[in-house]
Amino acid sequence: MLFAVRMDVSIPQDMDGKAKAELLANEKAYSQELQRKGEWQSIWRCVGEYANISIFDVSGNERLHEVLWGLPLFPYMTIDITPLAVHPSDVAVG
Amino acid sequence: MLFAVRMDVSIPQDMDGKAKAELLANEKAYSQELQRKGEWQSIWRCVGEYANISIFDVSGNERLHEVLWGLPLFPYMTIDITPLAVHPSDVAVG
Amino acid sequence: MLFAVRMDVSIPQDMDGKAKAELLANEKAYSQELQRKGEWQSIWRCVGEYANISIFDVSGNERLHEVLWGLPLFPYMTIDITPLAVHPSDVAVG
Amino acid sequence: MLFAVRMDVSIPQDMDGKAKAELLANEKAYSQELQRKGEWQSIWRCVGEYANISIFDVSGNERLHEVLWGLPLFPYMTIDITPLAVHPSDVAVG
Amino acid sequence: MLFAVRMDVSIPQDMDGKAKAELLANEKAYSQELQRKGEWQSIWRCVGEYANISIFDVSGNERLHEVLWGLPLFPYMTIDITPLAVHPSDVAVG
Amino acid sequence: MLFAVRMDVSIPQDMDGKAKAELLANEKAYSQELQRKGEWQSIWRCVGEYANISIFDVSGNERLHEVLWGLPLFPYMTIDITPLAVHPSDVAVG
Amino acid sequence: MLFAVRMDVSIPQDMDGKAKAELLANEKAYSQELQRKGEWQSIWRCVGEYANISIFDVSGNERLHEVLWGLPLFPYMTIDITPLAVHPSDVAVG
Amino acid sequence: MLFAVRMDVSIPQDMDGKAKAELLANEKAYSQELQRKGEWQSIWRCVGEYANISIFDVSGNERLHEVLWGLPLFPYMTIDITPLAVHPSDVAVG
Amino acid sequence: MLFAVRMDVSIPQDMDGKAKAELLANEKAYSQELQRKGEWQSIWRCVGEYANISIFDVSGNERLHEVLWGLPLFPYMTIDITPLAVHPSDVAVG
Amino acid sequence: MLFAVRMDVSIPQDMDGKAKAELLANEKAYSQELQRKGEWQSIWRCVGEYANISIFDVSGNERLHEVLWGLPLFPYMTIDITPLAVHPSDVAVG
Repeated sequence: MLFAVRMDVSIPQDMDGKAKAELLANEKAYSQELQRKGEWQSIWRCVGEYANISIFDVSGNERLHEVLWGLPLFPYMTIDITPLAVHPSDVAVG
Repeated sequence: MLFAVRMDVSIPQDMDGKAKAELLANEKAYSQELQRKGEWQSIWRCVGEYANISIFDVSGNERLHEVLWGLPLFPYMTIDITPLAVHPSDVAVG
Repeated sequence: MLFAVRMDVSIPQDMDGKAKAELLANEKAYSQELQRKGEWQSIWRCVGEYANISIFDVSGNERLHEVLWGLPLFPYMTIDITPLAVHPSDVAVG
Repeated sequence: MLFAVRMDVSIPQDMDGKAKAELLANEKAYSQELQRKGEWQSIWRCVGEYANISIFDVSGNERLHEVLWGLPLFPYMTIDITPLAVHPSDVAVG
Repeated sequence: MLFAVRMDVSIPQDMDGKAKAELLANEKAYSQELQRKGEWQSIWRCVGEYANISIFDVSGNERLHEVLWGLPLFPYMTIDITPLAVHPSDVAVG
Repeated sequence: MLFAVRMDVSIPQDMDGKAKAELLANEKAYSQELQRKGEWQSIWRCVGEYANISIFDVSGNERLHEVLWGLPLFPYMTIDITPLAVHPSDVAVG
Repeated sequence: MLFAVRMDVSIPQDMDGKAKAELLANEKAYSQELQRKGEWQSIWRCVGEYANISIFDVSGNERLHEVLWGLPLFPYMTIDITPLAVHPSDVAVG
Repeated sequence: MLFAVRMDVSIPQDMDGKAKAELLANEKAYSQELQRKGEWQSIWRCVGEYANISIFDVSGNERLHEVLWGLPLFPYMTIDITPLAVHPSDVAVG
Repeated sequence: MLFAVRMDVSIPQDMDGKAKAELLANEKAYSQELQRKGEWQSIWRCVGEYANISIFDVSGNERLHEVLWGLPLFPYMTIDITPLAVHPSDVAVG
Repeated sequence: MLFAVRMDVSIPQDMDGKAKAELLANEKAYSQELQRKGEWQSIWRCVGEYANISIFDVSGNERLHEVLWGLPLFPYMTIDITPLAVHPSDVAVG
């Protein structure tokens, strides 16, 4: 089941440098593990913004929430979700 | 060069049935030709809305405008564009 | 899989009376069939507005789109969807 | 009398860990007591957000305010209320 | 039970003069009957706008919806509702 | 001269408990004195929000500003004002 | 008593040319009479918009409403009002 | 050249009392000097808000920016500018 | 004096084809004459939108209004203006 | 490839004076180097705001992101991007 998700990140400017580096490393590892499993299908940077647009392919709402809630950066994110369906003009559909 | 594009469609309710059917057939053909060429990389229906989220892979701004302006449904669309860049956490990047 | 859906209805003021009555009867029948099947779990009127808030329990995004797209009033609706998950404070969870 | 209520939570990032755990435990207990009494009819997590959508069935506006004002997390919440009425298409109505 | 209600009116500019006069007379009669019954406690014109702010004192959500849905001008209104409770600083409370 | 005023309150979460209690006591006394003088005609709590809707009956804009600017909670408030006039449907008008 | 008022005008594009000319002439005459009386203290065009910002000096809310409601262009306007008071930095105050 | 300018002020609640008094005195002196020169034509308090609406008559955009950027309260302000032109209904125009 | 101006165009879908072609030809001629005179310094198409972003270099507010008000497409445009000043980091400044 | 970019700056009021001066000097040097290379084609101050509107001429989305992400003031900016294309009325086009 597909979802488009936009995540806007806002890390406090007074966060300790080392804590921040660790947080970002954890975020990257977390994201890449899900990408390798195929649940985090795509991730793109929004140009000029500390934000990404991602496509998730998960078993359902419960799993999507679990994945997003578990993001190391979750406390610093604003998240916007669009549930997706097959588009009738998609060439993959016929 | 990648762009996320959201298109919201609003066709006048008094449009003639035959004209509408033709318009939608043209839109589908137009979209599928671009999908086959690889410029219209993905298209998804937004659940419960007459709208889609698409990913375009085009040579640049000029080409993206040409493609969107040429959409048969363009006069009935509201279009929102987000330029995309590679995300540093993308596993495809390394 | 649960979704909260808010539907705001705006029927053109010049719609023919008979056509409107038929449309509303079809909408009611369509909704009640889905309620009896258990997919349209709840529907409430928003006080003072031509709108409803509903809870859907469907197999996934594809089915939710199919159900909403098929609403007789769909062309006259603005629809807002919130995917839901179990809340950790829900007594039904334990 | 029914109300749909959406609560968005924003806990300060510098809150002491123990104070936060206690606060969340109190919130859960408070919510569950009201659920058991039948006044807090349903609670769902909004996917990917620190937020919930709930249905309250209370004696009236005074009681709803008392319940919400008393939430341990109230100082950290933004609350949006929609008064509900029976929908004429509800199968439970006939 | 008290509710603050703001109603913004937008009557189509091409409405027939006689039909409009009748509609407005019906609206006034409808409003005044409810005022005399005490359910429509106050009504004020918003300066410079085709809008009013009103206070309703009704038995609950169901009755408020019935009253508002029945307004002759309802199809031409945008309605915004704020449920009210006693304020602890109100001198009438003590 | 009548005005509808909505006040949304946001007190800093780190305000000292005693300072806050004193501030709230001053606010209540200030409000009640104006209510007794008849200038602060009504005050209601907005259900589920740290906010009130009030009706002021003052000599004019200068006096309304003086009253609001003097509120002990003024530095912590967002204030929205709607000037009111007699409504032609008001039964008190005839 | 002073008020800043912004009026945005939107005349239907299919209005008959002669009717429109008459309407605009009436609006101008109406405005100029009030300017000469001193109640419509200032009027400026907002650059690049069919809109004006005006300062009114009237006896109170009732009179302001009467003046605005009576504008020949009122049915085609969106009006935004800001009640004004003397500013403590105004050199005219001392 | 005329501009309508709205300034909303938000001074940090923890600013030292003496620093704040000095800042406000500087702001007042700055404003009054420009009023006496005729560049700051009018200033009014927005009722119930820490805000003003002002009319500036300056040589152009560069000068307006210089004036506003130099405001002692500039770092604490949100500023909204509307360029003004003569209105054809202005009696001063003929 | 520089201004950034964004113009969004919305031509009624039922406009006669010939009338529309003439209107667009007039708009182009009008724009190009001003470009040649140097007052309409730059014009760019906003990708995927019936809109442009332009830079004007005019004698002041009065002239800018005259130019925009005279646009053949003015009745079909929404216009947003940002007055510009020299930026201290501009290399042309030194 | 052209992009219009608006940057709104918000530097924390408690930033150390020397750190701030250094930050601003770095920003200016960074901007001017890109201006000299021709990638940062134009920069204007928005009158009365700590903001600029700029035109970038870069090889594509990746480069635009690299440039913006590298701005010394990036952590203190809100950035809004509009991809641009040639306008058919541009005299430079013919």
